[in-house]
Amino acid sequence: MPFDESASRRRFLGTLGLGGLLTAWKPHAQAPAQPPAPAAAPATPWWPSRWGQGDQAGASNWITPDKVLDAAKLIRDGKIYRLGRTYEAGMPLFGTRTFSVTIPGGPTGGPFGSNKLVYHDEFVAGQLGQVGTQFDGFGHIGIQRGRDGDRNEMRYYNGFTEQEIASSEGLLKLGIEQVKPIVTRGHLVDVAGLKGRTLTAGEEITVADIRAALSRQGLREADIREGDAILFHTGWGQLWMKDNAKYSASEPGIGLEVARWVAERGLCLTGADSWSVEVVPNPDPSLAYPVHAELLTKHGIFNHENLIFDALLAERKYQFMYVFVPVPIKGATGSPGCPIAIT
Amino acid sequence: MPFDESASRRRFLGTLGLGGLLTAWKPHAQAPAQPPAPAAAPATPWWPSRWGQGDQAGASNWITPDKVLDAAKLIRDGKIYRLGRTYEAGMPLFGTRTFSVTIPGGPTGGPFGSNKLVYHDEFVAGQLGQVGTQFDGFGHIGIQRGRDGDRNEMRYYNGFTEQEIASSEGLLKLGIEQVKPIVTRGHLVDVAGLKGRTLTAGEEITVADIRAALSRQGLREADIREGDAILFHTGWGQLWMKDNAKYSASEPGIGLEVARWVAERGLCLTGADSWSVEVVPNPDPSLAYPVHAELLTKHGIFNHENLIFDALLAERKYQFMYVFVPVPIKGATGSPGCPIAIT
Amino acid sequence: MPFDESASRRRFLGTLGLGGLLTAWKPHAQAPAQPPAPAAAPATPWWPSRWGQGDQAGASNWITPDKVLDAAKLIRDGKIYRLGRTYEAGMPLFGTRTFSVTIPGGPTGGPFGSNKLVYHDEFVAGQLGQVGTQFDGFGHIGIQRGRDGDRNEMRYYNGFTEQEIASSEGLLKLGIEQVKPIVTRGHLVDVAGLKGRTLTAGEEITVADIRAALSRQGLREADIREGDAILFHTGWGQLWMKDNAKYSASEPGIGLEVARWVAERGLCLTGADSWSVEVVPNPDPSLAYPVHAELLTKHGIFNHENLIFDALLAERKYQFMYVFVPVPIKGATGSPGCPIAIT
Amino acid sequence: MPFDESASRRRFLGTLGLGGLLTAWKPHAQAPAQPPAPAAAPATPWWPSRWGQGDQAGASNWITPDKVLDAAKLIRDGKIYRLGRTYEAGMPLFGTRTFSVTIPGGPTGGPFGSNKLVYHDEFVAGQLGQVGTQFDGFGHIGIQRGRDGDRNEMRYYNGFTEQEIASSEGLLKLGIEQVKPIVTRGHLVDVAGLKGRTLTAGEEITVADIRAALSRQGLREADIREGDAILFHTGWGQLWMKDNAKYSASEPGIGLEVARWVAERGLCLTGADSWSVEVVPNPDPSLAYPVHAELLTKHGIFNHENLIFDALLAERKYQFMYVFVPVPIKGATGSPGCPIAIT
Repeated sequence: MPFDESASRRRFLGTLGLGGLLTAWKPHAQAPAQPPAPAAAPATPWWPSRWGQGDQAGASNWITPDKVLDAAKLIRDGKIYRLGRTYEAGMPLFGTRTFSVTIPGGPTGGPFGSNKLVYHDEFVAGQLGQVGTQFDGFGHIGIQRGRDGDRNEMRYYNGFTEQEIASSEGLLKLGIEQVKPIVTRGHLVDVAGLKGRTLTAGEEITVADIRAALSRQGLREADIREGDAILFHTGWGQLWMKDNAKYSASEPGIGLEVARWVAERGLCLTGADSWSVEVVPNPDPSLAYPVHAELLTKHGIFNHENLIFDALLAERKYQFMYVFVPVPIKGATGSPGCPIAIT
Repeated sequence: MPFDESASRRRFLGTLGLGGLLTAWKPHAQAPAQPPAPAAAPATPWWPSRWGQGDQAGASNWITPDKVLDAAKLIRDGKIYRLGRTYEAGMPLFGTRTFSVTIPGGPTGGPFGSNKLVYHDEFVAGQLGQVGTQFDGFGHIGIQRGRDGDRNEMRYYNGFTEQEIASSEGLLKLGIEQVKPIVTRGHLVDVAGLKGRTLTAGEEITVADIRAALSRQGLREADIREGDAILFHTGWGQLWMKDNAKYSASEPGIGLEVARWVAERGLCLTGADSWSVEVVPNPDPSLAYPVHAELLTKHGIFNHENLIFDALLAERKYQFMYVFVPVPIKGATGSPGCPIAIT
Repeated sequence: MPFDESASRRRFLGTLGLGGLLTAWKPHAQAPAQPPAPAAAPATPWWPSRWGQGDQAGASNWITPDKVLDAAKLIRDGKIYRLGRTYEAGMPLFGTRTFSVTIPGGPTGGPFGSNKLVYHDEFVAGQLGQVGTQFDGFGHIGIQRGRDGDRNEMRYYNGFTEQEIASSEGLLKLGIEQVKPIVTRGHLVDVAGLKGRTLTAGEEITVADIRAALSRQGLREADIREGDAILFHTGWGQLWMKDNAKYSASEPGIGLEVARWVAERGLCLTGADSWSVEVVPNPDPSLAYPVHAELLTKHGIFNHENLIFDALLAERKYQFMYVFVPVPIKGATGSPGCPIAIT
Repeated sequence: MPFDESASRRRFLGTLGLGGLLTAWKPHAQAPAQPPAPAAAPATPWWPSRWGQGDQAGASNWITPDKVLDAAKLIRDGKIYRLGRTYEAGMPLFGTRTFSVTIPGGPTGGPFGSNKLVYHDEFVAGQLGQVGTQFDGFGHIGIQRGRDGDRNEMRYYNGFTEQEIASSEGLLKLGIEQVKPIVTRGHLVDVAGLKGRTLTAGEEITVADIRAALSRQGLREADIREGDAILFHTGWGQLWMKDNAKYSASEPGIGLEVARWVAERGLCLTGADSWSVEVVPNPDPSLAYPVHAELLTKHGIFNHENLIFDALLAERKYQFMYVFVPVPIKGATGSPGCPIAIT
């Protein structure tokens, strides 16, 4: 039986906002009669990676001095655009994730000295790195091969196993601190602009959509080079803190076709104004987040979620230097923080 | 009695690594017989700020498009230097601050779907924003005027009072999310290089030191312009995770003379390879962190602590584009994250 | 203007489930034209307490050996009834409080040794002590006298001030560790049984109700002695995890009349199957949780919230040994844990 | 190779205070040349338990009405003794465990209403349930059978597997909420009193010691009945917050001989004034916490750590009603809280 309706599974689906999609996930009810597409089958090892056995930096290896100089050419008017959301009470939190900031004391301490200094700290608790605007690292997603529950056959980027990387206090391998700073050329693909509307739940962005949107924006596919970042505007972000339940329940996004196009082009990062970048539910309802696995696990390509593009769009800025430095928490699976576009 | 040897005060001193310096803090034992320097007295209101009443962004207002273009001129070879430390178990934690990362489950969930996806999250808890490499915001430091305990007379940057900003779940004003991305010209002043040794505990960096160090590095004081960032290499960072107790107990750093020079020049940010940038204990032992108050509270100038300059120093890179975007946690007093220098 | 519609106030109201009652709280709209009852005015000092200046144990001082022996006489058939709720995801959480349990790793560590031992820990984060079944201590509730924001005039049980007790890492005075173990005679007053229905939102339990309920249960008012615990069954607990929004928005409960009756009788503790025991909103909408202040702050009497009485009621057990030992977290304002009734 | 000197193992050893004992743990250096004692080999299934397949309450099943009535006979003078430690900064924390209490705001909120109510909450974060005085549940300890990393062969009490119970947000089975309130006959065995000295690190308490101590106390072995609790005074607790490093590095305690005696007598719980109750290091250095596995995993008997007996000893009280109700945090592996003895 490929599906286990366990509490654990329901929690995960809830975690990623799929609580309402359980029925859509039942393969006997809705999956095609044909066997699952081989694309989804994790039969073939995907390691070692193009950056060699043992590599933990993946597509951040694209960020060479030449790439930085190339990206700097996109700095023309000196404007900075924040592409990250504020972390705050009331933001969408998937499933049972929590996020809490408290200010100990009021003030935290003081007055001290003849100058009567007082101070505040903050205490942060929660799944920081996997809430709000988040940058997914390679420890976030893997694939169970072999028998369920065998940690020697849960595989991650570059073939690392759960048994090798797992630790209760930060992953032993593939932690976010292994990722190099991202300073690269960034491209915003305005799919919502192309279609003249917000994309709908479950709507898959295709390669044809990307080409048409680029053309509409006066760009060519060839402008998107190895190591670049590609960001998708779907309009879904309008629901942020307006209708969190709808925002999290499903979303438009890229599917396996675009994921493979991204991998073939050797990009560094995908991003979107949605909570997982990829289309949810997947058109093949038997698949759980296959784009995450295709990009992060199999190709070492990063994913940036819950971005906001309003200011860039208002000024029709589609190319920029994209800057993001993960917060180097040892062994973390992702990173909070606010990426910026500089034009 | 200007000093209250309360548990609260001892905790704060411990928090900032001063546990062992209590005696040094007793003014009757060590302070000069003269009255305290008026500089430390918070008698004169320091508000409104140069950026106007109500401003919460302080010196990040210097980061204009012109400043960004100016900083971009410092990008020459495309190299990126990480100036932040990894957040990890075993790093120095002042006083009773804690930092904990746990990986829920192993894996956190899965396998799901016919593609048997598994995933990890992380759970972070602690004074994040005020541990490890940290960027101090304006809610971190204030001054008690009037009667101790009167929140209407605890004043922060631009005159905001504790009563106005205090909230148990993130400050209502002066939160770190108000700070604009820092993309500016950065200058590294190698004071340890000038002196040919690691500076010692309690050793104050003077303006003359800065001038001599700049000269040794082939730079002029006039190269340091309004809105720029200035970083001090003291060598103290060599103790990081080598001798945490010594690292945290005291440190060399800048005093009020340099703080006023920084304020007069209208800089954006100070930073150092130490835990508070300023000299501890202060030569006037009656003062508690007067540089913090001078820069953050009175002049709206930021402070970046626990940096690392080894790679820059090895290649004698003293000027660069300095990039740091605070993690916009609403109402936080500071930010974690890894600033970078691009050359 | 007696009311400040600040974010802080809205958060508190939300915290205590009053998000939907903001309009009801506007005194000009609904309060009686008469001046507020002097009972609510904090003009008269309520200290020192009957247990002497400096006492921090309050009504737990009633728990003497004689009281324990008296309570032990109520043990007749040896049955134990758990009166506490399970702490779990999905339980009602007031306002922005959070509660999170994670299991680090799966397992947390191992195998170790030739015996191949593995182990799990848990990581708990949240307002534990003030979520789920909770025992309110004296640091939880106080009264601002004098000017708002003056911590020297915020007063707690026995006159302690905010300035004396406040600390960012646990209160310096009145922490829950000061409370002695509660082993006393307990009485369950089945008000819902008396009325033949669940009490309604905002319905106040009166002293007459108590007398009638006791009579119906075959008990006399005189059976309730100094130092005893009194618990109220309202039926409101049926909403727990069934309709959390309704559960938290308001509730039936005791008002100032019963609070004074409790204080005059010198009881040790009140409790109920509701989230604050007291009627919300109060019939005088200008008052914020006056019963909490009357009992905890002015009389040193404890309050136990979110209890469950189903098993006791099913067997018509109304008197028992009541046992609760606060988890002695230094400086905490309350305690989690499961009180029991032994019959 | 039976030992993996991995970071994970070192962390665990550190967690349990064994950081300094790594060499003692190397079997080739110190273990006897003979094969490991069969006692340690987990070859034989230990399930189903005496309480039947699927049981999760273990020895708390002994707590029947008859047992409660029997225990109540030990209440003679009505005195209550707290046997738990205060949870506070500075208490011993094994390995990388953390414990943090913050008071959000000062106060957390207010003033509200015409009565000007203010309030405090607390925010707790850490391995609560496995720090300070702690009651170990059955999810805490298991045994890896089969291949390392195969969660289907990590077995817990009553044969439950890691694959069945593991969940990132609280165990799915064997959570502490399954444990019934402990109200039973308790016996304190004063081994330190017998020997006239504090026991030494690595000193094993024998069955002969127990018999001699009971005799010295005027008790007979037959007084210790099925379902009773047995507590051992070693004197080790004198180091608590006096010399935390020594306290945690090793300890005297019971070994497999006493564990089997406890299991044969069908007791409910063991406890001691030490951090694991069992002797550390074990006389057979190849074994990792074999007493934990023997009692918790194989026999469903609970373990209570970091207790304090000073007041009982001062009054030579050796028998009492032992009362402890675990804080019912769903899926937790243990519980904080303060057990009491009533005499």
